[in-house]
Amino acid sequence: MKTDKRIRGVLTPVVTPFDEDLAPNPRRLVAHCRWLASQNCGLALFGTNSEANSQSVDERIDLLEAVVGAGLDASIMMPGTGCCALPDTVRLTRQAVGLGCAGVLMLPPFYYKTVSDDGLFAYFSEVIERVGDARLKIYLYHIPPIAQVGISLKLIERLLSAYPDAVAGIKDSSGDWVNTRAMLEAFPNFDVFVGSEDFLLANLRAGGVGCISAVANVNPARIADLAANWQAGDADARQSALSATRGIIQAYPMIAALKATIAQFADDPGWAKVRPPLVGLTPAQQSALKDALNAGGFTMPGLRS
Amino acid sequence: MKTDKRIRGVLTPVVTPFDEDLAPNPRRLVAHCRWLASQNCGLALFGTNSEANSQSVDERIDLLEAVVGAGLDASIMMPGTGCCALPDTVRLTRQAVGLGCAGVLMLPPFYYKTVSDDGLFAYFSEVIERVGDARLKIYLYHIPPIAQVGISLKLIERLLSAYPDAVAGIKDSSGDWVNTRAMLEAFPNFDVFVGSEDFLLANLRAGGVGCISAVANVNPARIADLAANWQAGDADARQSALSATRGIIQAYPMIAALKATIAQFADDPGWAKVRPPLVGLTPAQQSALKDALNAGGFTMPGLRS
Repeated sequence: MKTDKRIRGVLTPVVTPFDEDLAPNPRRLVAHCRWLASQNCGLALFGTNSEANSQSVDERIDLLEAVVGAGLDASIMMPGTGCCALPDTVRLTRQAVGLGCAGVLMLPPFYYKTVSDDGLFAYFSEVIERVGDARLKIYLYHIPPIAQVGISLKLIERLLSAYPDAVAGIKDSSGDWVNTRAMLEAFPNFDVFVGSEDFLLANLRAGGVGCISAVANVNPARIADLAANWQAGDADARQSALSATRGIIQAYPMIAALKATIAQFADDPGWAKVRPPLVGLTPAQQSALKDALNAGGFTMPGLRS
Repeated sequence: MKTDKRIRGVLTPVVTPFDEDLAPNPRRLVAHCRWLASQNCGLALFGTNSEANSQSVDERIDLLEAVVGAGLDASIMMPGTGCCALPDTVRLTRQAVGLGCAGVLMLPPFYYKTVSDDGLFAYFSEVIERVGDARLKIYLYHIPPIAQVGISLKLIERLLSAYPDAVAGIKDSSGDWVNTRAMLEAFPNFDVFVGSEDFLLANLRAGGVGCISAVANVNPARIADLAANWQAGDADARQSALSATRGIIQAYPMIAALKATIAQFADDPGWAKVRPPLVGLTPAQQSALKDALNAGGFTMPGLRS
């Protein structure tokens, strides 16, 4: 049984624009969030593809303040708040809850690599107790290819048992459908988002609630359409089309490719900037990506309005 | 040719004491630093074994201020300052340089796992340019088992070529002597510390400058003695004795074992606390470790003075 008050559908880890001097640019970020919201896409600010961990806690605090302060609806937001350091996670989570965000997406602490479920349970417990707010909805963030530290089924079970209200769901970015299905089957009142629209239809058919996809930064409406109409007769065809677009983009380093695509369609070259240790696309990569997207008939309607 | 103004010998990643409520305890930290200094051990505060990445930047700033403010000599300090986020690394590094620390030990940004040497070069370059202080001495921190992101020989070569004064050396915690030897052979004016006293004698014989060892938190004087007397006739016997002691401790999770050992010998049970996601030793582990250390005749002279 799903609690229908919880967020569902399609969200994107909103890419974070940086100026030439590498400072975050709140104006560009707010504009992109507005466009994404207009395309029925929720805002998972400060995800992996947002270069969240390349930003200081203060920078993230200021950006979320700017986005909510600009009048965007916090009830479509699920900011990432999981850091290596407990006090950082608590601080970011408190802010998100205080601003009325729908939930927070929480990485496990990811520096130490051989941590136990006991240690992770203690960590998440401390966060929940310290935030101490009944509005808190945590979505655990399982992304073993990058964080290396994963979220096991046993850990989810313990957390749900101890904090059935605060622990709302998960983003499964394992890319392993067997793992996603196991979570869907094991925990009925636990909302599973997949980390790629490639699994969106399968996830919705199996009882999941949506996806949190980097590619939704550039292709939000079509992904959101599938989530809204997954029981329609043409759902499989729509899924194939989404995966084809994703395939074009993920042939390149994802974050640089997303930013280059926004820069191109917004006619705003400054958007392409990434923070080290990431690097931007080469001119040759940019040109090849542009050609491939054009050949596929890709557009970003309304981006420049 | 080594620049003899640079720090050398034995340093330890000073373990960080936490109170029952998980707040850092500067009083205990200062006392431990004083004891380590009295044992001829330098202070690599905020290393992996310091639970540095489990602390906020503000906590680390306050602790370093407290340690230097207590009158400890900054010229024996090499605080860890490498974070995932460039502004955090710059802020911590500026503080350390401003306080007169001998150097800083700098992790690469460790969230993204497939970063290029171009991206890492850009990252370290930005840090060096932004800190913009001729006193800056960076020791790169190569610890692939934990950070996953490593420091390649090619990256060192590029950094040394661009910043021969700022890039002073490395801590090699790969545990791979072939890698350590390759660095020693490739870069004459580059100070190599090994990450374990197991390799101390080999490193000094091959032209390295010392070690930065977690176990020096509890066994500093004997490790420092070997570094000072590595050309003595009994050096191999001393090395074996050091490795035997290390073997006892590293049979347990390192950080918890170090803290339990300090708690025992300082008769201060509060020292044993670790921050999640780490967990402390079980009572059975504590007891077994204590017995093994006693059986080996292990002592921490002067710790309780």
